[in-house]
Amino acid sequence: MSTLAYDKTITAPLVIDPYNDFISEGGKAWPRIQAVAEANNCVSHMVEVLNAARTAKLRVFYAMHHRYRPGDYETWRYIAPIQRMAWQRRTFEHGTWGGEFHPDFVPAPGETVAQEHWCSSGFANTDLDLQLKKHGIHQLIVIGLIAHTCVEATVRYAAELGYEVTVVRDATADYSDEMMHAALDINMPNYANVIASTEEVVAAIGAL
Amino acid sequence: MSTLAYDKTITAPLVIDPYNDFISEGGKAWPRIQAVAEANNCVSHMVEVLNAARTAKLRVFYAMHHRYRPGDYETWRYIAPIQRMAWQRRTFEHGTWGGEFHPDFVPAPGETVAQEHWCSSGFANTDLDLQLKKHGIHQLIVIGLIAHTCVEATVRYAAELGYEVTVVRDATADYSDEMMHAALDINMPNYANVIASTEEVVAAIGAL
Amino acid sequence: MSTLAYDKTITAPLVIDPYNDFISEGGKAWPRIQAVAEANNCVSHMVEVLNAARTAKLRVFYAMHHRYRPGDYETWRYIAPIQRMAWQRRTFEHGTWGGEFHPDFVPAPGETVAQEHWCSSGFANTDLDLQLKKHGIHQLIVIGLIAHTCVEATVRYAAELGYEVTVVRDATADYSDEMMHAALDINMPNYANVIASTEEVVAAIGAL
Amino acid sequence: MSTLAYDKTITAPLVIDPYNDFISEGGKAWPRIQAVAEANNCVSHMVEVLNAARTAKLRVFYAMHHRYRPGDYETWRYIAPIQRMAWQRRTFEHGTWGGEFHPDFVPAPGETVAQEHWCSSGFANTDLDLQLKKHGIHQLIVIGLIAHTCVEATVRYAAELGYEVTVVRDATADYSDEMMHAALDINMPNYANVIASTEEVVAAIGAL
Repeated sequence: MSTLAYDKTITAPLVIDPYNDFISEGGKAWPRIQAVAEANNCVSHMVEVLNAARTAKLRVFYAMHHRYRPGDYETWRYIAPIQRMAWQRRTFEHGTWGGEFHPDFVPAPGETVAQEHWCSSGFANTDLDLQLKKHGIHQLIVIGLIAHTCVEATVRYAAELGYEVTVVRDATADYSDEMMHAALDINMPNYANVIASTEEVVAAIGAL
Repeated sequence: MSTLAYDKTITAPLVIDPYNDFISEGGKAWPRIQAVAEANNCVSHMVEVLNAARTAKLRVFYAMHHRYRPGDYETWRYIAPIQRMAWQRRTFEHGTWGGEFHPDFVPAPGETVAQEHWCSSGFANTDLDLQLKKHGIHQLIVIGLIAHTCVEATVRYAAELGYEVTVVRDATADYSDEMMHAALDINMPNYANVIASTEEVVAAIGAL
Repeated sequence: MSTLAYDKTITAPLVIDPYNDFISEGGKAWPRIQAVAEANNCVSHMVEVLNAARTAKLRVFYAMHHRYRPGDYETWRYIAPIQRMAWQRRTFEHGTWGGEFHPDFVPAPGETVAQEHWCSSGFANTDLDLQLKKHGIHQLIVIGLIAHTCVEATVRYAAELGYEVTVVRDATADYSDEMMHAALDINMPNYANVIASTEEVVAAIGAL
Repeated sequence: MSTLAYDKTITAPLVIDPYNDFISEGGKAWPRIQAVAEANNCVSHMVEVLNAARTAKLRVFYAMHHRYRPGDYETWRYIAPIQRMAWQRRTFEHGTWGGEFHPDFVPAPGETVAQEHWCSSGFANTDLDLQLKKHGIHQLIVIGLIAHTCVEATVRYAAELGYEVTVVRDATADYSDEMMHAALDINMPNYANVIASTEEVVAAIGAL
């Protein structure tokens, strides 16, 4: 825990998919996430990390899933299962409350929202890598949803693209404990340099 | 001319940056483009190609430059000269008429507008490559602006990424004849499989 | 099972990391893989799929991990945990038997070996996407190692980049049943269009 | 000239295609390059920049074109004109003297050679972006061949991907003065932050 140390000039928090549909009472996917998210206080931990980063003047980045719009998928010849589900469920529908930022995670002026991603990785087919490079960022502190899909995908891509990553283990959630375990304990230890608690990460950010 | 032949299932037109600021009377950059664009009837040729493609039921794609928004560049540590110019000139300013599609090139329902690009290539840091793959496209018919910047950049990227490209030589324009010559005669012949006239391309599309 | 159908002109098998170090008696990682690989007859299933593909004249692609060479990592400022392990273990050391293709998976003339990948995805920082596009491939049949690292990473990237994917569930292996379960049952169903047995896939290829 | 200043920790020279076929007496393309290259002392300037960088302990990177190997292109469904030419001419043929580094540009131990590129950009479908990120590089000093193809393509990609670039104008060459002019005066000023002489760049590196 004492070894967690960041370099302020190259470190940034990355908030993944803080949509109402995921983490707000009444959101389309909230009933499936609620059990895990409440057990580890996911949302309040996300707020703690975000606030610590803002206080330390770290630049905040957001990776947001594509908001559903009519006509998005009808003409595709090729589609992945997770995209077919997004199509059927109309998750994060554009123009609806579910497709808006949870009120605690509305980007502040000067924070960077990457282009929406079509599958799970915040990097794929977006300007996230560019925005991070334009700001000189090499180390990411990742919070958000869902652990074994968008979070893991983004962490895997970050490692592939040359970034170092911290995952805040109690500032993410999933549909089941088994999925959380697969993401946090089986897969991400290969790609994330640090998997730590909110308490540890907030302390490290506070020391900057 | 007789050899121009397309396969309908894998071919699509790509319209680059048909903004009012570029090709409408009153646009910010129009005064610098007007001489070349009027000499080769660029805009009406672009309309001819687009109409031919729509008639042939080809799927139309649009690659649009980033619309200027306040705060876009202020925090970047690294910036390219062409981005610095876009910042100073506020080209394609979001929310203004100049940042809207020229009325002849407003996307129809079912046409695909890729995410905005930050520099010159319609492919870089966007979902253009993904959208083309999702629709099974391997051959592009490119029209639009500016020949030696966004058009050439997009054609170069298309070749690097594995696409075959037709450039319609009188459906693009530039700030000077020398720039047109550099793009059409010096550089793009290495990357575009065909550089042909509107008449030739429209005939080939009409034969589909 | 009867619904598995491929289009010959756009389908290709992708063989991931068939190194001696992974799947040959005496390989560095073989002792850790052997239990799972022998339980599902991984290697002989991989051979069956490869042979079926060659018989059907499908074009075969290989995604190979970076072979360790001295000096590879010493100067990196940023490194992922899985790369640090590759560095320490010198897996697939260049110039050694462990870094050679298992004899049953030596590429035949006319087959395509993508550039070596540095992390887990066969697509990241390589020419795999380009080679697939140059050959008009949109659907992949994936076999090889390790299920929850390179195979899952490559499948996730394939989905992100627009490919449709079949994973052959008994033609891959892992360090533990739990890891296999995480890859095959928790994660890859979101990204692979089909997860089927060797028997099913070989039958579908044979029907081409 | 006095304003040229680099930050040692984020700057690296990038040497593009220093093959015998390009810049050695007897090379396949040398007869077409010789006039321009001798007029501006291209090769000796390239050596000066390289030596200055090595003396200053900057890390050197190399972007090398694909070496021709039999079978490379025969099965491609789609091909760019410049690739068709490389196929016909067998430029940089693997295993021949023409495909070896010019003796003055053989990488020293600890220098990084990116994977070979298939078209013109050293970044496309290679690990160049990854290697630069792994070493924390944000600013490139570009030398090498050919100005309007591989050099311009690499500079354009560098700008698209977020790098700042210096092009050394008398440490590159081309088939004609007109091509040099198109690259150095028409196109690259949009993408390169600095286009300066060997004398200026060597002085700035010497000041580190």
